[in-house]
Amino acid sequence: MLEVNGRRYALPSRPTVIVCVDGCEPDYIAQAVAGGHAPWFKRTLAAGTALIADCVIPSFTNPNNLSIVTGAPPSVHGICGNYLFDVESGTELMMNDPQWLRAPTILAALSAAGKACAVVTAKDKLRRLLGHGMRGICFSSEKANAATVEEHGIDRVLELVGQPLPDVYSAALSEFVFAAGVALMRTRCPDLMYLSTTDYIQHKHAPGTPGANAFYTMMDGYLGALDEMGCVIVVTADHGMNAKTRLDGSPDVIYLQDRLDGWLGAGRARTILPITDPYVVHHGALGSFATVYLGDEDVSRTMACIASLPGIERVLTRDEAASAYELPPDRIGDVVVVSERSTVIGTSAAKHDLSALEVPLRSHGGVSEQRVPLIVNRPIAGLDETQRWRNFDAFDLALNRAQ
Amino acid sequence: MLEVNGRRYALPSRPTVIVCVDGCEPDYIAQAVAGGHAPWFKRTLAAGTALIADCVIPSFTNPNNLSIVTGAPPSVHGICGNYLFDVESGTELMMNDPQWLRAPTILAALSAAGKACAVVTAKDKLRRLLGHGMRGICFSSEKANAATVEEHGIDRVLELVGQPLPDVYSAALSEFVFAAGVALMRTRCPDLMYLSTTDYIQHKHAPGTPGANAFYTMMDGYLGALDEMGCVIVVTADHGMNAKTRLDGSPDVIYLQDRLDGWLGAGRARTILPITDPYVVHHGALGSFATVYLGDEDVSRTMACIASLPGIERVLTRDEAASAYELPPDRIGDVVVVSERSTVIGTSAAKHDLSALEVPLRSHGGVSEQRVPLIVNRPIAGLDETQRWRNFDAFDLALNRAQ
Repeated sequence: MLEVNGRRYALPSRPTVIVCVDGCEPDYIAQAVAGGHAPWFKRTLAAGTALIADCVIPSFTNPNNLSIVTGAPPSVHGICGNYLFDVESGTELMMNDPQWLRAPTILAALSAAGKACAVVTAKDKLRRLLGHGMRGICFSSEKANAATVEEHGIDRVLELVGQPLPDVYSAALSEFVFAAGVALMRTRCPDLMYLSTTDYIQHKHAPGTPGANAFYTMMDGYLGALDEMGCVIVVTADHGMNAKTRLDGSPDVIYLQDRLDGWLGAGRARTILPITDPYVVHHGALGSFATVYLGDEDVSRTMACIASLPGIERVLTRDEAASAYELPPDRIGDVVVVSERSTVIGTSAAKHDLSALEVPLRSHGGVSEQRVPLIVNRPIAGLDETQRWRNFDAFDLALNRAQ
Repeated sequence: MLEVNGRRYALPSRPTVIVCVDGCEPDYIAQAVAGGHAPWFKRTLAAGTALIADCVIPSFTNPNNLSIVTGAPPSVHGICGNYLFDVESGTELMMNDPQWLRAPTILAALSAAGKACAVVTAKDKLRRLLGHGMRGICFSSEKANAATVEEHGIDRVLELVGQPLPDVYSAALSEFVFAAGVALMRTRCPDLMYLSTTDYIQHKHAPGTPGANAFYTMMDGYLGALDEMGCVIVVTADHGMNAKTRLDGSPDVIYLQDRLDGWLGAGRARTILPITDPYVVHHGALGSFATVYLGDEDVSRTMACIASLPGIERVLTRDEAASAYELPPDRIGDVVVVSERSTVIGTSAAKHDLSALEVPLRSHGGVSEQRVPLIVNRPIAGLDETQRWRNFDAFDLALNRAQ
């Protein structure tokens, strides 16, 4: 047994694959299964274990991937967004460097225990965080052509996978993750493999639409191949996804920095959108979660102003948010703001380039995107389906209950 | 000016059409507009008035249609579902007879003031409630062939409309409503027309899917025709719609009567589903709202048991529910139960015939289906978009602000 972040894990006795499907609102699977587009999922839901779990808030990619691989909430691992305001240096910066990680990963512990591990992510932004402290294979689809044995534990990846380097904004970026997973399992047989996709499709295509169903058919085929090789497979997600549009199909945005500037004076408060990253084409940096640094301004009066805006779901103080969502209090603002199912939060209108949004916005970040699937391709006896399952129970189910 | 249920309405100075699109989650319109399937909506949203409003809870058809035509919540008009437990007689019965209506309609007041009124509904269940006390034309698509001058104010409807009698479970049932509306406006030019469709399509097809877009294209054409005739048009809805399925596409049902029987003993409590009506093929009588009559059982202990079930959103006492949702306290149970976005409430598993559900269940009834469009084909100056708009503000906007 290993102990990581206060939880105990058995070593895998057979090849085990944990899959994080980015933006996998449960209805994507329900619609694909009901429409006959996902035969592996249909068989697995009937014969295996099918739970609905809660992801961590903010319902963004990096906090949730790190929760899954540490088995712990952001209050433990420290990654509460892509982007933060560093109070010490007084600057806004990306949180994708392992210096921000406060907890070891289960992957690192498994590799230290002599188990062969492999990680494939879609975008490179996650690679260094997921692979921190881990010996083994760790690369991204995005930069698969640049993988070296020294840094990534593998080279000649395009040759191994037999697919060209995919565009960073494409369904192929995620397909490459699965194709690489199957090729790695065939040729290297890792004990533990972690696969993490991108939500390019989910940001554009609603559950049950042809574009979404085609993506789940693709995934279904690769998961079926891994299953045939005898793998224990757990499928979960980092967050769900909802339409965030006005009636005319334009994004339903609350420009919070503009509102704060109006109430308090320009620049008195600072709005941070933890969704912010270099890849903004499919969501325009618009999600349903923001934190606000207020300096000397009155916290409760400002909170009341924010709460009065239509489309706002919750406004919490730093301490309330740290407690409610298990967040590191030193990395969030004085106030945390969550918007509703159909609304996103922006900073200033002038700072968001929405010209690349080709279809009505779908996005995430809020409590309305907290439900995610948690599927195991094995039946598990005596499971309490009424407990609150989390996506970061994935390794516990895979290693302790499904071997 | 008329006064009805404490609100004042100007008489219409031009032909006015109020449309209640059954199950019109706002995203149906956003997706149809964004996909280029609804040119009239696109023009109207840009040039007219586009609001999001809250419907009344329970988010069912009859309570909301009656709220729209009375301009008041169910606490005033008394219609809080299709189905109720009549404490006096100790029987469960349908609430579609005007004897249950406690308030006059704006339609009745307009007709008494000498204005020509016409009502077309899809299903006959609503006809007598909507037409109560009103002189003029009032018929349903479902029984259009049986309309008589004596009872419905019109006969030979199929001939007028030029379409065959539609099946009660079809998109054509709603198309007949619009086709009849256009034919009536061309031939009879009513001062006020109320059109109310059925949600057969919305129960089966998600926003943005081909089946949904085709329905909104159909509607768009008829609304465009009414607009060209110079009508003031207000489009709203009775409720939204959400997928209510497990991962495998089967309905995600909490069988509340079975749970209550388990906790309290068989038949000690009585679960009433106000969605119940004779037309159950497309939802199996499964919605996200129930009331419970507890007899001598302990209310707070039972409420705590119900609240502990996964998928339950709110559990309120009769008084709390009457206050929160503006319901008539004498027509709801000791406890009101609302389930979450992805969950529906049943009575006993044995009492629901789900064999007719051909596609994954979509349904309504809860707070998660409360948002609806409120669109006027005229710009309205000085409108407060941050106030809480209700679908039952439709007549106020049409008659007082848009003439």
